[in-house]
Amino acid sequence: MAAPPHETRPAGPGRALPDTQQGMRRRNLARVMHTVSAEGPLSRAAVASHIGLTRAAVSTLVDELIRSGLLEELGPERPGRVGRPGSALAVSGRGPAGIGAEVGVDHLAVYAVDLRGEVRARAVRHVANRGRSPEPVVGELSALIRRVVADAEREGLWPAGLAVAVPGLVAGDARTVVRAPNLGWHRTDLGALLPAGYPLAVDNEANFGALAELWLGEGTPRDFLHVSAEIGIGGAVVVDGRLLRGTRGFAGELGHVPVRPEGPPCACGGRGCLEQYAGEEAVLRAAGLEPGGDRVGLLAARATEGDEAVRRALSEAGRALGIALTGAVNLLDPEAVVLGGELAGVAPWLLPSLEAELAGRTALPAVPVSVSRLGPEGPLLGAAHSVVRGVLDDPAAVAERG
Amino acid sequence: MAAPPHETRPAGPGRALPDTQQGMRRRNLARVMHTVSAEGPLSRAAVASHIGLTRAAVSTLVDELIRSGLLEELGPERPGRVGRPGSALAVSGRGPAGIGAEVGVDHLAVYAVDLRGEVRARAVRHVANRGRSPEPVVGELSALIRRVVADAEREGLWPAGLAVAVPGLVAGDARTVVRAPNLGWHRTDLGALLPAGYPLAVDNEANFGALAELWLGEGTPRDFLHVSAEIGIGGAVVVDGRLLRGTRGFAGELGHVPVRPEGPPCACGGRGCLEQYAGEEAVLRAAGLEPGGDRVGLLAARATEGDEAVRRALSEAGRALGIALTGAVNLLDPEAVVLGGELAGVAPWLLPSLEAELAGRTALPAVPVSVSRLGPEGPLLGAAHSVVRGVLDDPAAVAERG
Repeated sequence: MAAPPHETRPAGPGRALPDTQQGMRRRNLARVMHTVSAEGPLSRAAVASHIGLTRAAVSTLVDELIRSGLLEELGPERPGRVGRPGSALAVSGRGPAGIGAEVGVDHLAVYAVDLRGEVRARAVRHVANRGRSPEPVVGELSALIRRVVADAEREGLWPAGLAVAVPGLVAGDARTVVRAPNLGWHRTDLGALLPAGYPLAVDNEANFGALAELWLGEGTPRDFLHVSAEIGIGGAVVVDGRLLRGTRGFAGELGHVPVRPEGPPCACGGRGCLEQYAGEEAVLRAAGLEPGGDRVGLLAARATEGDEAVRRALSEAGRALGIALTGAVNLLDPEAVVLGGELAGVAPWLLPSLEAELAGRTALPAVPVSVSRLGPEGPLLGAAHSVVRGVLDDPAAVAERG
Repeated sequence: MAAPPHETRPAGPGRALPDTQQGMRRRNLARVMHTVSAEGPLSRAAVASHIGLTRAAVSTLVDELIRSGLLEELGPERPGRVGRPGSALAVSGRGPAGIGAEVGVDHLAVYAVDLRGEVRARAVRHVANRGRSPEPVVGELSALIRRVVADAEREGLWPAGLAVAVPGLVAGDARTVVRAPNLGWHRTDLGALLPAGYPLAVDNEANFGALAELWLGEGTPRDFLHVSAEIGIGGAVVVDGRLLRGTRGFAGELGHVPVRPEGPPCACGGRGCLEQYAGEEAVLRAAGLEPGGDRVGLLAARATEGDEAVRRALSEAGRALGIALTGAVNLLDPEAVVLGGELAGVAPWLLPSLEAELAGRTALPAVPVSVSRLGPEGPLLGAAHSVVRGVLDDPAAVAERG
């Protein structure tokens, strides 16, 4: 079973497993998987020396993981080394796959990612979802999921779990969307609408985006604040390599930090929230552009051409982000701020004013701001990888199912 | 040695100790101490049944703790019970004590707290410290510390460690004050100025206030946001029973969350920070009162009498607090907000506008706000108790010193 990302999970592999003989075996299976995943291809002897177990113990574990289809042997290592040639082990490209799905305000997307982290099947559909009721939207998403699962199965993969990113607040049950104001959904049980038969975890898109940054970003620290923007502005807080979830699972709502307390009303119930200044629609309005189409691409193109209204709108959005982030940095003291989502595409025009606010509002060294390389793919990759990480963290549970 | 409060320490007793025979003995000593501290007086048999060890094993541990002066025997339990009467064990009122000290903008204070949690000696001195250089201030504090230690020693106690609360940012070394704008201190090594010979931990006053709330408050949840105010407004974030410290140890700076981004300049380098609206001096100014004397007492008295200017000033401060807390609640999703420090004394006039802002800026149920019963004593109690908790968490380390 893929562990639901709603759990606050230990940083190390399988540390939550019980302290019994059986628990120890499962933890050791996880150690072998994580070692081969991070360092492979590796011989059994190399795995044994990495994790500090005897070669005989590792062989037993490896045999079990090969039988379950989680590891594969690449054949004998190249000759020329001392001793009997060992067979190199690699994470299987045919075993379980993580299915990541995303409900966006203007798109639906599904990826299948194998244990090696490669995207092996995908489907994307551009569709305006704002104001549509959940049933037809999730119906279309389910059709995409079935198509991606079928494609993955043709490649010898099978779905180990389904993780769905949504632009809204998700309850602690990891299936109920409590509020997604930009879709217009309230208390929607996605579990009842999605295809049955896979372990399911629904989560906020910014949370999955932050996990993608943590797992796949280059040089991402273990304490950072992730800002993710599509129509809304999401945020996620990572502390010591774990998502800060909050009591109800709603932490990280940077988009609803008040920037100007008497500002325009917001769908969240507040006034003058960051989203009212730096959300995509606010920026388009300020730039004098109509919503619709590839709006972020349009903003970037106009800004590149030197359109003053667009540049001013992006600079003002950066300023609002800087004000909200000043508050967040004062509260959280993160090592870095990472900008992701669609926002990453216009970062060159946001960053100067954003960084000026951050630096000008403190006498201390300002926190560094970086731009995600994953961009708008982050939440989808984070969702799919959360299932893959669940497999690496407890391969025995998957082997029992597979 | 008292564990420095700057460590992020495991929730359970002594869980950070190594996984060896010696580590297990130390963990078990901690379990015995915590059990007797929380549930005592208890017989050896009751302790054994509480922690799931044999009575023989517990007897060995208890004997060691009695020899070290951490536990004491109260004599035979009262008759009438079944079986041979056991001698009831209690935490010693004569062993190690936690010395807590506080540098305030207008006072210095020192408490000695025994392992039972009782304040056994104290010294408080009202003195205007703003703008004074650290040497004379810490010199006066050191004199108070020596007096309190001498008083405690006369009661048969000995200092197990010294914890000092300061109104400013403290570096990860738990001795250097990086910035205390309301004192005017910058990069001050208190370790070099305080009396030598005790394990030392300097920390932000709001952090110690939050720990006091967690340990001594009634019904305080394990996830909460603590607001503490004296001249400045401090904050501390507790997540799952642990302080959120941030990368540099600066997390929780609620006082410098921007409330109105174009507002008045602040000593932190920013503009329109919460402190500029809800700090004590801002409130006094808005109320038309002169600084000096028992200002919070004066505000409370005037507000009680119906002074409209004072009531309006407090209501506006509550409003600013509500705006800053809306941002903090969006980011952290705490179970509760606890108002402590001097602020607690005027809470009745702050709360209505504060709660109205919190409730009016979200469509979700608003987070509950409570008022600390510890009030301005919180930081000092938190400091002294952090040393006591360090002893309970690793009694063996103290026994070796004592």
